[in-house]
Amino acid sequence: MNKIKAGIIGAAGYTGGEMIRLLLYHPQAELIFALSRSQAGKFVAETHTDLAGDTDLKFADDFSTNVEVLFLCLSHGESKKWLTEHKIPSTVKIIDLGNDFRLGDTAEGREFVYGLPELKRDVIKKANNVANPGCFATTLQLGLLPLAQAGLLKEVHTTGITGSTGAGQKLQETTHFTWRANNISAYKTLTHQHLGEIKQTIRSLQPSFNNSINFIPWRGDFARGIYVSSVLECSLPENELHSLYKKYYQSHPFTHVSSTQINLKQVVNTNKCLIHLEKIENKLVVHSATDNLLKGASGQAVQNMNLMFGLDERSGLQLKSIGY
Amino acid sequence: MNKIKAGIIGAAGYTGGEMIRLLLYHPQAELIFALSRSQAGKFVAETHTDLAGDTDLKFADDFSTNVEVLFLCLSHGESKKWLTEHKIPSTVKIIDLGNDFRLGDTAEGREFVYGLPELKRDVIKKANNVANPGCFATTLQLGLLPLAQAGLLKEVHTTGITGSTGAGQKLQETTHFTWRANNISAYKTLTHQHLGEIKQTIRSLQPSFNNSINFIPWRGDFARGIYVSSVLECSLPENELHSLYKKYYQSHPFTHVSSTQINLKQVVNTNKCLIHLEKIENKLVVHSATDNLLKGASGQAVQNMNLMFGLDERSGLQLKSIGY
Amino acid sequence: MNKIKAGIIGAAGYTGGEMIRLLLYHPQAELIFALSRSQAGKFVAETHTDLAGDTDLKFADDFSTNVEVLFLCLSHGESKKWLTEHKIPSTVKIIDLGNDFRLGDTAEGREFVYGLPELKRDVIKKANNVANPGCFATTLQLGLLPLAQAGLLKEVHTTGITGSTGAGQKLQETTHFTWRANNISAYKTLTHQHLGEIKQTIRSLQPSFNNSINFIPWRGDFARGIYVSSVLECSLPENELHSLYKKYYQSHPFTHVSSTQINLKQVVNTNKCLIHLEKIENKLVVHSATDNLLKGASGQAVQNMNLMFGLDERSGLQLKSIGY
Amino acid sequence: MNKIKAGIIGAAGYTGGEMIRLLLYHPQAELIFALSRSQAGKFVAETHTDLAGDTDLKFADDFSTNVEVLFLCLSHGESKKWLTEHKIPSTVKIIDLGNDFRLGDTAEGREFVYGLPELKRDVIKKANNVANPGCFATTLQLGLLPLAQAGLLKEVHTTGITGSTGAGQKLQETTHFTWRANNISAYKTLTHQHLGEIKQTIRSLQPSFNNSINFIPWRGDFARGIYVSSVLECSLPENELHSLYKKYYQSHPFTHVSSTQINLKQVVNTNKCLIHLEKIENKLVVHSATDNLLKGASGQAVQNMNLMFGLDERSGLQLKSIGY
Repeated sequence: MNKIKAGIIGAAGYTGGEMIRLLLYHPQAELIFALSRSQAGKFVAETHTDLAGDTDLKFADDFSTNVEVLFLCLSHGESKKWLTEHKIPSTVKIIDLGNDFRLGDTAEGREFVYGLPELKRDVIKKANNVANPGCFATTLQLGLLPLAQAGLLKEVHTTGITGSTGAGQKLQETTHFTWRANNISAYKTLTHQHLGEIKQTIRSLQPSFNNSINFIPWRGDFARGIYVSSVLECSLPENELHSLYKKYYQSHPFTHVSSTQINLKQVVNTNKCLIHLEKIENKLVVHSATDNLLKGASGQAVQNMNLMFGLDERSGLQLKSIGY
Repeated sequence: MNKIKAGIIGAAGYTGGEMIRLLLYHPQAELIFALSRSQAGKFVAETHTDLAGDTDLKFADDFSTNVEVLFLCLSHGESKKWLTEHKIPSTVKIIDLGNDFRLGDTAEGREFVYGLPELKRDVIKKANNVANPGCFATTLQLGLLPLAQAGLLKEVHTTGITGSTGAGQKLQETTHFTWRANNISAYKTLTHQHLGEIKQTIRSLQPSFNNSINFIPWRGDFARGIYVSSVLECSLPENELHSLYKKYYQSHPFTHVSSTQINLKQVVNTNKCLIHLEKIENKLVVHSATDNLLKGASGQAVQNMNLMFGLDERSGLQLKSIGY
Repeated sequence: MNKIKAGIIGAAGYTGGEMIRLLLYHPQAELIFALSRSQAGKFVAETHTDLAGDTDLKFADDFSTNVEVLFLCLSHGESKKWLTEHKIPSTVKIIDLGNDFRLGDTAEGREFVYGLPELKRDVIKKANNVANPGCFATTLQLGLLPLAQAGLLKEVHTTGITGSTGAGQKLQETTHFTWRANNISAYKTLTHQHLGEIKQTIRSLQPSFNNSINFIPWRGDFARGIYVSSVLECSLPENELHSLYKKYYQSHPFTHVSSTQINLKQVVNTNKCLIHLEKIENKLVVHSATDNLLKGASGQAVQNMNLMFGLDERSGLQLKSIGY
Repeated sequence: MNKIKAGIIGAAGYTGGEMIRLLLYHPQAELIFALSRSQAGKFVAETHTDLAGDTDLKFADDFSTNVEVLFLCLSHGESKKWLTEHKIPSTVKIIDLGNDFRLGDTAEGREFVYGLPELKRDVIKKANNVANPGCFATTLQLGLLPLAQAGLLKEVHTTGITGSTGAGQKLQETTHFTWRANNISAYKTLTHQHLGEIKQTIRSLQPSFNNSINFIPWRGDFARGIYVSSVLECSLPENELHSLYKKYYQSHPFTHVSSTQINLKQVVNTNKCLIHLEKIENKLVVHSATDNLLKGASGQAVQNMNLMFGLDERSGLQLKSIGY
């Protein structure tokens, strides 16, 4: 079989770099170009220096339409603009890692499927355009999907913590090492931009849901990963909850229900999501964890590509974890 | 004025070490002995190596009663046993850093005042025995006291994160550097042992309170500090809440209400607690932060000693923060 | 082609865990058993928790000889003992990750080739038994091999820093998170146990070498990786040195000479070694970096297996770096 | 006694912030103003947020001459310019934390004493102007002074590692959290700007010294502190070396010779320098450690102020270490 030809738009940032790392060694895909306006002409390994010795690719200054799929790794709001300003043949599939199309927006007649395989795998398989979910959105939703499907979701209180790569490459006070090392702080309290796509998903499964998802994001003092704990009232006993989750995820290769407490480093540098349930009296606590750049971004984008092109969902994504 | 003579029981652990650091340079107190059974005869600076050059003190193998105050820095459950097994003159005041006496227990006829100065300063001033609050308990309570006093407390959802020093010196998997670096994990979900003292305080201020304090503690990948975010319903507007808190803490030198978002490192290596309030629709979010070994343990113990002996509450506690 | 059948002896430690991670997804090898006396019967993913969802393998309590290669991941000194006490058919190849056979020792008639592919690739291809080099030894040697081959090596002054995984899983003061976070310290100054194998290699290439390798190891506050800087007198100009190194490593897929300054995270979670040369007046400084568990241990062991079985040297080792 | 009136020029940066922290609680000094052009009019605690609750001081937009001492916390090269452009009465003493006057330069007729108390305490006591040493320069010199005084210094090979605060507040790639976390890298190999002042000191003590100080600085993944290891040939036995160092530093309250191995966190958040000596065959290894912002900058500046004004050298500098 020929390899799938892929291009990256916006390849100099964190998600763009991670796309390159994944596509370089993907057994059934081929990276045709990595476009970066700001870095055009430079070797990719000059910017993503961990790729030294892995590739002689240079950043392109323009895209080619001789590809089957384009990954858009642009700032939020830039994807729609880019698609409008450039003529992309309708035969080229689009996977957008930004938030432009997650809530139903279209561009140039393209409609986007929300790319959470654990929610919409069959639809993604037939999709031409996919809006890749946000990192916090992925981690929270995977912790709540089985409940919503069962109509059991009530008001949720969630705290989540994210690594510095979640804030992007831009230099700012809160990403300065001196500030962030050994530090914790809240931001966007109860107003995080991922709440929209989370609620959209919940309502699609449990239309009557009309409660709050009270989400407090924290900045963590590590580079990679997201860990969230969600609390809600639930009358189901723990064993039934465990079965509900196990059943929901049994056919999904990257999301696993752990019977023991989870920790963030179990998933760092993998495309996995781990979930652990605890039931204390009438409260259910759901812990979930992902790598924000993989299952929370570029890894899920590759998973979506695999699905859209009929490949094994796991192709190119059986990554060695950092482990320690 | 003569300096207050102080002794430490259990001086080889983290809170014991921090007591030594504080008492060595306290302008109105004098460390008479630092007892450690396991380290007796060794130089204090061999165990607490950062004290190299600061003191030639050795760990004592026995206590002396020629002191005015004893700090008990023992494992939970050991303080009551120690007081029962040793004859301490009633003229010697006791400050217990463990959890043995926080809920009303007594030993040898000694009754203990719960040592949270922002709650009971006047009672502490007259106390002979003080039960020093827990670290998470201090941080959570300081975030909630003004609401409880105003009778405004409803069900609370709190997530808190703590440094590795909160877990003590014992070597265990979750304090191994390889495990903990860049890692996050929950523990004692909704069942943390500090909930007892928190509820006792709340009911003393708001007797009708009959709701849950849903508290999820996380292990953080840093050594010092506690940061918590608490969410609850509240109908008061933000400016009234700000006034309520400002008024409550105006006479308290270590607890400050910040009008801007707070971060953990603002308080590391200080005896301060910082609080920030956010009101979003009908929800109030209270962020609070302390250093778990200072305001959460040994610093608050010194603050209590200062109060019990009529000193300026701040004496010996105007510490240079780590800052960065 | 049939997959190579592999077994691991001592699979519960850090290098054993990393062997499992690598072999699970190696396209041409198959992990037949992972023996651990202490963990026998437990799921591998209970100990190496990042493998949750990746494997249902349990630790074996005994080995099988139905394998083509055995990886010994035992404490130093234990490999020789194990080989002596157990009957392993001579048809089973051995790769020892300990230091028992690096200096020429034998066991049960087995002679071991020193497994540094950049030094002995052709000999390794024919070897039945390989002594895998130490982590610091690998990193230092790769920085010096071209000089030694050219007879240019003089007295060397090296400082190296290693992650906590270099110290093994054992709980001890210097691997306690509270101690090690944000900390640096020297150990085994000028007496590190890897100096023996380093000198053996150097003398094999430059027999007249009779100088000191002054090596100061430091403990770093990170989990993975080794970074070393070596200084020596050298009269060759920088461009000739660069050519010398480029030529030496041109056929070696994992060791790369960088024309720009290197940093540790370029190699973390990869099997690569990066080298950078700086010439200042008559001094040459060689910086080199590896991941201590991969190129410094289990990755190099897989590389050696690949060579011994005629596979592509890179098979199973094109790992996605952590990047950030 | 009246308190010494002090002003800070350039108070928004790291050393300026640390000056404020030290002067706020100095028992014999009073901070009159903290000038920052960029932050003028803002509360000091808005920039140095750990000072929340400690001070209501605002950054000044101009200086006052109603002070007895000025601390210049400007970028390198800016101090001389500032002194030339502003009229400062000769009765105001100057302590410059930059590198403008360390090698003998003057401004407006002011001559500067090199402010290393362990080298020039008696001269500093009479000085009107002091050039505060660099952070690496302080740490290296304190490790070598006794040898130079004894005429024993030979070629030195040193590696040193520094926290991110050593690189200043400016946002740049190598101070981005994502880059620096868990990372190590060399910079300014053998060409660090502190070598000039180090050599000047050595030659003042051992005029015949004509060897290299081969110094390789590394960027560390922590915020505060410097740790260096220096190697040189030395024929003196270890006990004589220990005596030599003990004797040299016996009257100096902040520099201590440790008979056991040292680690960085022993000195973090203190004004101390710890030194440990190891003799292996004919090589002497000297390890030394300081906090780069305290003994390496603002703490030493206060120590110099204390000496210049006849105070106890330790006044305001008996700081609680971070410990853990």
